[in-house]
Amino acid sequence: MDQLIASLHEALPDEAILTDPDVTATYANDMAGFCEAGAPAVVVMPRTVEQVQHVMRTATALRVPVVPQGARTGLSGAANATDGCIVLSFVRMDRILEINPVERIAVVEPGVVNAVLSRAVAEQGLYYPPDPSSWEQCTIGGNIGTGSGGLCCVKYGVTAEYVLGLDVVLADGRLLSTGRRTAKGVAGYDMTRLFVGSEGSLGIVVKATLALKPAPREQLALAAEFPSAAAACEAICEIMARGHAPSLLELMDRTTLRAVNTMANMGLPESTEALLLAAFDTPDPAEDLAAVTAVCKAAGATEVVPAEDTAESELLLQARRLALVALEKVRSATMIDDVCVPRSRLAEMIDGTAAIAERHDLTIGVCAHAGDGNTHPVVCFDPGDADEARRARISFDEIMALGLELGGTITGEHGVGILKKEWLAREIGPVGLELQRGIKKTFDPLDLLNPGKLF
Amino acid sequence: MDQLIASLHEALPDEAILTDPDVTATYANDMAGFCEAGAPAVVVMPRTVEQVQHVMRTATALRVPVVPQGARTGLSGAANATDGCIVLSFVRMDRILEINPVERIAVVEPGVVNAVLSRAVAEQGLYYPPDPSSWEQCTIGGNIGTGSGGLCCVKYGVTAEYVLGLDVVLADGRLLSTGRRTAKGVAGYDMTRLFVGSEGSLGIVVKATLALKPAPREQLALAAEFPSAAAACEAICEIMARGHAPSLLELMDRTTLRAVNTMANMGLPESTEALLLAAFDTPDPAEDLAAVTAVCKAAGATEVVPAEDTAESELLLQARRLALVALEKVRSATMIDDVCVPRSRLAEMIDGTAAIAERHDLTIGVCAHAGDGNTHPVVCFDPGDADEARRARISFDEIMALGLELGGTITGEHGVGILKKEWLAREIGPVGLELQRGIKKTFDPLDLLNPGKLF
Ligand SMILES: Cc1cc2nc3c(=O)[nH]c(=O)nc-3n(C[C@H](O)[C@H](O)[C@H](O)COP(=O)(O)OP(=O)(O)OC[C@H]3O[C@@H](n4cnc5c(N)ncnc54)[C@H](O)[C@@H]3O)c2cc1C
Ligand SMILES: Cc1cc2nc3c(=O)[nH]c(=O)nc-3n(C[C@H](O)[C@H](O)[C@H](O)COP(=O)(O)OP(=O)(O)OC[C@H]3O[C@@H](n4cnc5c(N)ncnc54)[C@H](O)[C@@H]3O)c2cc1C
Repeated sequence: MDQLIASLHEALPDEAILTDPDVTATYANDMAGFCEAGAPAVVVMPRTVEQVQHVMRTATALRVPVVPQGARTGLSGAANATDGCIVLSFVRMDRILEINPVERIAVVEPGVVNAVLSRAVAEQGLYYPPDPSSWEQCTIGGNIGTGSGGLCCVKYGVTAEYVLGLDVVLADGRLLSTGRRTAKGVAGYDMTRLFVGSEGSLGIVVKATLALKPAPREQLALAAEFPSAAAACEAICEIMARGHAPSLLELMDRTTLRAVNTMANMGLPESTEALLLAAFDTPDPAEDLAAVTAVCKAAGATEVVPAEDTAESELLLQARRLALVALEKVRSATMIDDVCVPRSRLAEMIDGTAAIAERHDLTIGVCAHAGDGNTHPVVCFDPGDADEARRARISFDEIMALGLELGGTITGEHGVGILKKEWLAREIGPVGLELQRGIKKTFDPLDLLNPGKLF
Repeated sequence: MDQLIASLHEALPDEAILTDPDVTATYANDMAGFCEAGAPAVVVMPRTVEQVQHVMRTATALRVPVVPQGARTGLSGAANATDGCIVLSFVRMDRILEINPVERIAVVEPGVVNAVLSRAVAEQGLYYPPDPSSWEQCTIGGNIGTGSGGLCCVKYGVTAEYVLGLDVVLADGRLLSTGRRTAKGVAGYDMTRLFVGSEGSLGIVVKATLALKPAPREQLALAAEFPSAAAACEAICEIMARGHAPSLLELMDRTTLRAVNTMANMGLPESTEALLLAAFDTPDPAEDLAAVTAVCKAAGATEVVPAEDTAESELLLQARRLALVALEKVRSATMIDDVCVPRSRLAEMIDGTAAIAERHDLTIGVCAHAGDGNTHPVVCFDPGDADEARRARISFDEIMALGLELGGTITGEHGVGILKKEWLAREIGPVGLELQRGIKKTFDPLDLLNPGKLF
């Protein structure tokens, strides 16, 4: 321990090394419930690539595990400390190095906050699409670590599609450059994509070259009330089958709507069992909204409200933005599932989740990036009530089992971390697991990089 | 050898096993020049996954290398046989298993021809974008093997972005399923993307789940004549920087234009040094073409011809479609480079290639997927003329060196194969190479899968 700290001091300034246990303890975990977290030996906050390399060389020499962290908004325990580890926090390595409108790329350090980057590129008429709801806090390094998504992904895709190249510090401190600055490239295995979603287990991202899009037009939204989740999901399938390209297509179930209604007095009728939100940033969004209104009515919508302008759109989306906060008020804690199913199975997923909630006498509200089939069942519980907590955990798992049964995946965008380790093994099977472990071993033979995550 | 054939017969019908050396010799190579090719021991044409598994189990038991092949239209020798290998040809495993408009996916066997799939999905109002110019011959398995691109990639992206999940037979015959049927998913390392562009060196693709898009509108094109490559490239950069989304943005240099003129009497003025083709499939393409016309004129275009309808558009694109054929008529053979550079370096790439041609007294025509910075310098030579062939090979390499110097990659879409092995090592460096070899070893410890390709 003394040797570790002394070694770190050799190439890092004092202010970059935190050892006060009261302070380091606050870096023990991300925002996932139910995940064990150890006590870090030290928290290091590098500002340069060389400093990161020094940390990794030290870690390798002394066989100390390293846990990279962004803003710790993760929902799977993937950034949780292990006992005696070095926490490597990137919050100070947060410069935007380049924004290039001709190449349509940005080059950034990993600690830059998603919203900071998004605003900076917007000033130049550009757009960095991945927009997790945590965008005001979460970092690009964390987004790459988890492969994060968001509301706009139904049209613009997820983080993985926007990472062109990476600089990565390997477990032994060597620097690897992957990928490219060019629009295309197929030189060798796609190492860049291998790092996206690898949760810090293969290497430490110290620089990222990101693809940008031209700024989209402002979007116009509608809200549609449905008498059942099945009817809403029928509308969703029909919207996608007809070739529409919504820039947002979100669903909230009855439980979520009631929670939002209770908190914010939104005046939604109690008879509404599902609320669908759709938006378009096309040249003529009103035309698209009219077409979608017809689809919703044909599927049984009781009420469809299209916005006339951006301000009205924002008002309609308000309910969605409040969903998580409202559900968090139901009990003192939540666990958020992230099951993604084929669109055609969405109704079964939502109704099945309601059945699980009833069986275990719990409140579980579902909001979904419905256009992608990506549901977020939010399991509400009181951690002080041991039995309720137990039931919450069981429900959380049953929801993943249901997702797999329906041909889906246990995680559409939040990742595996500690929380879903057993479930990853079930999803990818023994052959997949063996190969993933083989890849891990190739990159990190001493198992120092975020050990105990994923598998 | 006898044992190999006997073993294969245990689970494969006679018609699936070709051993006549005159026949098997015709499967020795793809369409790349200058690449050695060995003599296959046998060509196997499986129709089922189980048959492929049997082939791989046999290959592992007897330590025989296996070379997977699609249509052998590859341009890097990646499908070339090695002496005594099993060629595993997928031309008979060519069923489209599912086209699903709600999920926007297709599930196919690897041998399905790109154009066959494209037409089948178009019938259902859907679109499979990757469109290599070889689309009437090349297979989806080969497209996945090389990570192929095409004309529409400037707007719609490359093969990698359309592969959601794969069934892969491993070197030892075990079956691995990767990825998903869902729109999103981040469960574990991205094994699917690792296989895309891996040139058959990690496993045999036996089934692919592909993402589809809604059918686009018909595109409208323009042609713009420029007095220099630099002026044309200035227009390209400006078009991209202004946020336009062309569905095609192609460039032909002077040498290519003269070859096309000579062959097809297109009547292009001799003073034209570069021809830019742009197309839009937006709701109002005429508006986009007008804007691009203005950009081209400002950059110095001497003539801009926008099409009024689809038929006129096709006529304008004719010159591009003839480019390769016309260059192939210059000398008896060609070698096609595939360097992709940052857009802003495109002019340097084209002028630099012209200088290389002059230095070595060769004809080298460049056509480029200019919107992506992806150039295809076509080196024309007579293989019967030993000195010319030598100069051709040197030029081919100098073009890659120039690409790397300009911050580009040696291959935007054709892959590495045998032809660019040394150059892959230069591009990714020793650390990258070591890790790629490590990955190869994890999947194929006995080095049986397409050995000698990539590195
Ligand atoms: C209110 C709320 C809303 C959310 N909404 C969404 C949403 O809409 N969509 C979505 O996808 N997620 C969402 N999330 C989850 C979370 O915000 C994302 O997973 C985000 O990408 C995490 O970023 P972070 O900076 O907080 O990373 P952290 O949580 O600190 O780390 C995430 C992972 O990345 C690794 N990591 C971090 N930096 C590096 C680096 N430099 N090199 C290597 N590995 C690194 C960590 O080790 C860890 O494995 C939400 C979370 C909250 C709390
Ligand atoms: C006239 C012409 C124009 C072209 N235009 C383009 C273009 O615009 N864009 C572009 O990107 N390319 C282009 N190419 C190159 C070539 O067509 C592509 O690389 C194509 O993807 C190859 O497909 P194929 O079926 O012929 O594969 P092959 O050449 O047979 O094989 C390609 C690679 O894939 C591997 N492979 C094949 N099947 C499998 C399988 N089932 N499992 C695992 N590995 C497998 C092979 O081992 C090999 O490594 C062109 C070629 C020609 C001749």
